[in-house]
Amino acid sequence: MSNLAAQTAENLSRIRLNKPLIHNITNFVVMNYTANVLLATGASPVMAHAINEVEEMVGFAGSLVLNIGTLTDSWVDSMVKAGQKAAELNIPVILDPVGAGATQLRTDAAKRILHETNVQVLRGNSSEILALAGSDSHSRGVDAGNSVEEAAGAAKYLSKELGTTLAITGPVDLITDGTRVVEVANGHELMPYVTGMGCSATAVIGAFSAVEKDMVVAAAGALAFFGLAGELAAGKAGGPGTFMIELLDALYNMSPEELQAGARFLER
Amino acid sequence: MSNLAAQTAENLSRIRLNKPLIHNITNFVVMNYTANVLLATGASPVMAHAINEVEEMVGFAGSLVLNIGTLTDSWVDSMVKAGQKAAELNIPVILDPVGAGATQLRTDAAKRILHETNVQVLRGNSSEILALAGSDSHSRGVDAGNSVEEAAGAAKYLSKELGTTLAITGPVDLITDGTRVVEVANGHELMPYVTGMGCSATAVIGAFSAVEKDMVVAAAGALAFFGLAGELAAGKAGGPGTFMIELLDALYNMSPEELQAGARFLER
Amino acid sequence: MSNLAAQTAENLSRIRLNKPLIHNITNFVVMNYTANVLLATGASPVMAHAINEVEEMVGFAGSLVLNIGTLTDSWVDSMVKAGQKAAELNIPVILDPVGAGATQLRTDAAKRILHETNVQVLRGNSSEILALAGSDSHSRGVDAGNSVEEAAGAAKYLSKELGTTLAITGPVDLITDGTRVVEVANGHELMPYVTGMGCSATAVIGAFSAVEKDMVVAAAGALAFFGLAGELAAGKAGGPGTFMIELLDALYNMSPEELQAGARFLER
Repeated sequence: MSNLAAQTAENLSRIRLNKPLIHNITNFVVMNYTANVLLATGASPVMAHAINEVEEMVGFAGSLVLNIGTLTDSWVDSMVKAGQKAAELNIPVILDPVGAGATQLRTDAAKRILHETNVQVLRGNSSEILALAGSDSHSRGVDAGNSVEEAAGAAKYLSKELGTTLAITGPVDLITDGTRVVEVANGHELMPYVTGMGCSATAVIGAFSAVEKDMVVAAAGALAFFGLAGELAAGKAGGPGTFMIELLDALYNMSPEELQAGARFLER
Repeated sequence: MSNLAAQTAENLSRIRLNKPLIHNITNFVVMNYTANVLLATGASPVMAHAINEVEEMVGFAGSLVLNIGTLTDSWVDSMVKAGQKAAELNIPVILDPVGAGATQLRTDAAKRILHETNVQVLRGNSSEILALAGSDSHSRGVDAGNSVEEAAGAAKYLSKELGTTLAITGPVDLITDGTRVVEVANGHELMPYVTGMGCSATAVIGAFSAVEKDMVVAAAGALAFFGLAGELAAGKAGGPGTFMIELLDALYNMSPEELQAGARFLER
Repeated sequence: MSNLAAQTAENLSRIRLNKPLIHNITNFVVMNYTANVLLATGASPVMAHAINEVEEMVGFAGSLVLNIGTLTDSWVDSMVKAGQKAAELNIPVILDPVGAGATQLRTDAAKRILHETNVQVLRGNSSEILALAGSDSHSRGVDAGNSVEEAAGAAKYLSKELGTTLAITGPVDLITDGTRVVEVANGHELMPYVTGMGCSATAVIGAFSAVEKDMVVAAAGALAFFGLAGELAAGKAGGPGTFMIELLDALYNMSPEELQAGARFLER
């Protein structure tokens, strides 16, 4: 990871060249915006959730993005089926455990997907990710109250326990595979005022994972790209409405060179 | 209600301070926009419709917003279940009977929700609300053809019959609990050219009802806030597309003082 | 078709005068944007998919738009039921076979709708439409690799085979009923970077088909209108985000005279 910014710029170029198909099984709230984020990035989104279609569809995909934001039991069945097929085909699976910890249904669904498929990157905020951990991780804490060093240590432990790369997003994002830790400082304070920002970030991780085998590099790069676009959009926005629209323009217009110059990584 | 504008400004401050969770079981068309309206207002939206999740979710909520815009039978079951739990917990339920009167399924669903849960505010246009009334109310008429005095009288009667506060929206909105009547004159003629404006207004009533016990004050205040944001947005818009985006900015940027100055209430 | 541009301008005036109800059974990704496109055009959209509602709803409609973008089996059942009722009532049915050819479920669903209902216009890209044809049509080719003359000839053949007017969209759109062929050269290269552009074009064909009996005139006119709005929007846009919003403004603001002057038809 000696030159993470350069690798990230190169990955953005690859996405625009290869236009990988990203298969999303995601929630109703963000389907439209997520698809537009992926198109603006340069990838090719498809949304498909029918149990009798997901295995065939994922076969064409560069990655599979699962998101439990408006789940029901039958959708979780489709997610597991698609995820198992993806594992068979060595297609990366990215999971967004929206609302894990808030209700039993969501916590159970996220755990089931984690256990029954091979999730490569788990992207959530700290409380969602902690909700999926054993009690030992809870007591170690990755939450805002802790120092950065404590949070990094706890995240590494948690990544090993869950067996997946973690992308814990917040004012500063923390990405770890249990050994390496990267922080990403890009982003903007308007983001929490638009729905689906986290879900979209997860989808962009999906796009980067389709062109990059190292999931720490893929996830950190995606979050820097998405966060930097947010910074650029905020400069043109008068509030969350214009912000969410300018963000699509910023994703589309950002050159690999701008991304390389603007990405703010901290490797620990 | 001697100072409705001041109370409304105070309620907007409370929403931004408390960020109440608004649980929406709503239609596919407006989920994204409604969530963004609630975020721009200062509330915290969640969309959750699974029958095995809604009772747990509504327990965290400041209010429950039910909307039958793209209903199927199983969604109505979830709405009733969530609504009954809300009643148990003294959480206000706001109902938007989209398309009641157009098809039997919608009329029946809205009536079932009204009868089996404890709806605090019913927000619709006059034909939707009339469709839920007995034939006696029909003959009295709240429709555009009648004078304002006749409409106000009929609305009071209808509110008593349906046992809920009514928010009948149109060029001028009429809110009544069967005793008091408030009219709200805010709004803009571009609003009917954007989908989900009525649904979003209902969701904003949900946000105000989470911080205000008097449902006439909550509903009238929410409609003034939403309508005034529409007026401000129209000043920057070149058509319905830019209007719907500027509306989100206007909701986000409006100060309680601006709301107090711009709200146009008429108490009868 | 001696004055297609004049007829198209007249049809736009009729849509704005009559505000026909367009019944959509469409995919989750584009529901919101499609509804906004129809409103900006001047039509009245409704989204309704419940099996026990679609027959009643379609009875009020000027046309029925079916779109298989995020289908499951039960949605296809609703589409067929609505389509059969539409045929009974002489209401035009417009089909968008999103992803036909990509998965068996989609190909089968589109074929079933074609065979079990009376589709008046089938709108898709060349690969989607070819996927619905017999092998003979495949060998003739309507794809980008062929000359315009070959593509037009193959499309006429395909239209007769499928028994419906075809609207094959791409950089230049090709509309044929098996006898007449019209090409439409309006559009903009930003369109593929926004999700739901094809789906929205299909919905606009629905709006024009509600006021025009000749499906070649309706489909060609709708695509000219939508494509010209795209050209106008691109002049104000900084990327795909602002483009999709400006497109709604352009649809709303376009006068029949501007449409007549800007439509680029080529009749063969």
